[in-house]
Amino acid sequence: GKTYRVAAIAGDGIGKEVLPEGMRAVETAAAKFGLEIEFTSFDWASCDYYLQHGQMMPDDWFETLKGFDAIYFGAVGWPATVPDHISLWGSLIKFRREFDQYVNLRPVRLLPGVPCPLANRKPGDIDFFVVRENTEGEYSSVGGRMFAGTEREFVLQEAVFTRHGVDRILKFAFELAEGRPRRKLTAATKSNGISISMPYWDERVEEMAKSHPGVSWDRQHIDILSARFVMQPDRFDVVVASNLFGDILSDLGPACTGTIGMAPSANLNPERRFPSLFEPVHGSAPDIFGKGIANPVAMIWSGAMMLDFLGNGDAAFKAAHDAIIAAIETVLTQGPRTPDIGGTAGTAEVGKAIAAAI
Amino acid sequence: GKTYRVAAIAGDGIGKEVLPEGMRAVETAAAKFGLEIEFTSFDWASCDYYLQHGQMMPDDWFETLKGFDAIYFGAVGWPATVPDHISLWGSLIKFRREFDQYVNLRPVRLLPGVPCPLANRKPGDIDFFVVRENTEGEYSSVGGRMFAGTEREFVLQEAVFTRHGVDRILKFAFELAEGRPRRKLTAATKSNGISISMPYWDERVEEMAKSHPGVSWDRQHIDILSARFVMQPDRFDVVVASNLFGDILSDLGPACTGTIGMAPSANLNPERRFPSLFEPVHGSAPDIFGKGIANPVAMIWSGAMMLDFLGNGDAAFKAAHDAIIAAIETVLTQGPRTPDIGGTAGTAEVGKAIAAAI
Ligand SMILES: CC(C)[C@H](C(=O)O)[C@@H](O)C(=O)O
Ligand SMILES: CC(C)[C@H](C(=O)O)[C@@H](O)C(=O)O
Repeated sequence: GKTYRVAAIAGDGIGKEVLPEGMRAVETAAAKFGLEIEFTSFDWASCDYYLQHGQMMPDDWFETLKGFDAIYFGAVGWPATVPDHISLWGSLIKFRREFDQYVNLRPVRLLPGVPCPLANRKPGDIDFFVVRENTEGEYSSVGGRMFAGTEREFVLQEAVFTRHGVDRILKFAFELAEGRPRRKLTAATKSNGISISMPYWDERVEEMAKSHPGVSWDRQHIDILSARFVMQPDRFDVVVASNLFGDILSDLGPACTGTIGMAPSANLNPERRFPSLFEPVHGSAPDIFGKGIANPVAMIWSGAMMLDFLGNGDAAFKAAHDAIIAAIETVLTQGPRTPDIGGTAGTAEVGKAIAAAI
Repeated sequence: GKTYRVAAIAGDGIGKEVLPEGMRAVETAAAKFGLEIEFTSFDWASCDYYLQHGQMMPDDWFETLKGFDAIYFGAVGWPATVPDHISLWGSLIKFRREFDQYVNLRPVRLLPGVPCPLANRKPGDIDFFVVRENTEGEYSSVGGRMFAGTEREFVLQEAVFTRHGVDRILKFAFELAEGRPRRKLTAATKSNGISISMPYWDERVEEMAKSHPGVSWDRQHIDILSARFVMQPDRFDVVVASNLFGDILSDLGPACTGTIGMAPSANLNPERRFPSLFEPVHGSAPDIFGKGIANPVAMIWSGAMMLDFLGNGDAAFKAAHDAIIAAIETVLTQGPRTPDIGGTAGTAEVGKAIAAAI
């Protein structure tokens, strides 16, 4: 079989603590199912690197990484020394844009053994995907400030929605829905308030729906949609959203399942022209860094998503993915658990238990 | 005492069913505390009116309403016959903009007798305000489309943040926080992703904080802030946000308290140059219109907010406000209740019970 080359980038804070546990799980599953995964570690895309070099990454980062099959990423950000907009726009957001990782895919799932903040919900009740556009929309650097420093000061911030960008994320989401048992899609919008970009988004959703007749779909305004994540999370299957709305929904969803510290994510370039990136949703968590108590589940779960994507339908990779998920569920049910979910175990202890369960 | 003149506008759908109950409660409280409130009803700002006249309101709506002390508003929208962007931009959004109702104030409170979707929360645990900027920000009609109909098509949507607009909403929010026991303020931001408008917003928050040293404040990104509404709703006191973020948070907050159908709102012009507008957060609810089962609590609660604002600190008005809130709590605890919260009573029955409790 082919050897898959993965760039392992720990980044900052607890990224450095959870990445080794993710690699352990991936290597264990790979060994079990006969997959060849080869990790290469890099210490840049981190604030430490920035403090030494005045930039987050070396000039040749693109050339260095572009031949890899995937990037397995810890977390970036250390606001005490480097402002977030420098660390993030100098690394993570560059990867997403320049490697054209236009899909940000985030599962929302109620797991066994995890305290759920919603009343009367049990594992199995909540199981859906947020598909977030990851390169354009509200996250733009176009705009500016006028009359700076005076009473008349104002800023303009442009949101940019291209047909190219909108159609490809909608296509991905409709196809994802087609492959799931419920075949349902909800598109987040706000066309009753935001009067140019969102009606355009609605228009493209309607157009894309025509070529995916097997999917039952609706549109919901982001305000009431957020409310329904709390009130009726069992109703969702695939939720597709713009960059900003997807950002909000993919934190809110895991919050509703009690898994905000355990949520994985995939930043995908579905055409595989560039490496895709797999990272936990949690950040670098300066408050708990160094204590060895970070929950490694998000990192490990992201590793499972990575194997699934690398396999591109291959049965052995799917089996490796499923084995990791099953191992996570076993350990969440039986322990050991990290303190954030009521346990007393450390990062490595949980990581080893998951590897053993694989 | 002065006679306060209130324009009563039912609008569409259940707006027509709940407004009379709101007026009943306000009139009862006014009579009890010796306040002079005079209602004048209008049938425009409704889709019925639009279907007859091709516009949502008569040309002289501004002249007609501007002398009123307040507008007591039901709900607008009937998407089956009039698209939302026509009905809303032709009425509600016009009021907000042209009467410069730049504060949208929405209480989030866990009420007795209301099933809460969050586990282990009880009345008293959740009690905060969302203060939403209501005239500018992401809700703008500036922008456009290029290469329409081709593969290269794209749209630009401008968000507009002025110092005038940002500073006055922040000032209102800081002053509100100053008058509350906990004196806490959280500003919603997304400056790590939206790189021009949100850093500007952050800058103005920091500046405004300097002149309100008694308030302890922080900034939270909208993604994690939304998550915390679910996970730690007891932590908030005053949450200030841009137009879009405030829209989301003020639906999400009531969803977390189980009161999305019961949430009130005030659209305020704090300087009283123009009438302020008081409306339930729920819309016209075409699905239940005509059945007489709409929950009138949001409308009645909005009426209490109206009295409080009209009184501008006056003790009799405050007492009238408190009496309405107490009556709502009594009826929510003892019944009768509408079907949305597990009862079998109709709109008028609940409205009369609340009036009686006042
Ligand atoms: C109907 C819509 C335009 C409106 C808004 O987004 O302002 C509503 O959601 C609200 O919150 O009052
Ligand atoms: C850190 C931030 C720029 C980022 C985003 O908003 O995209 C994060 O919240 C995420 O969701 O990955």
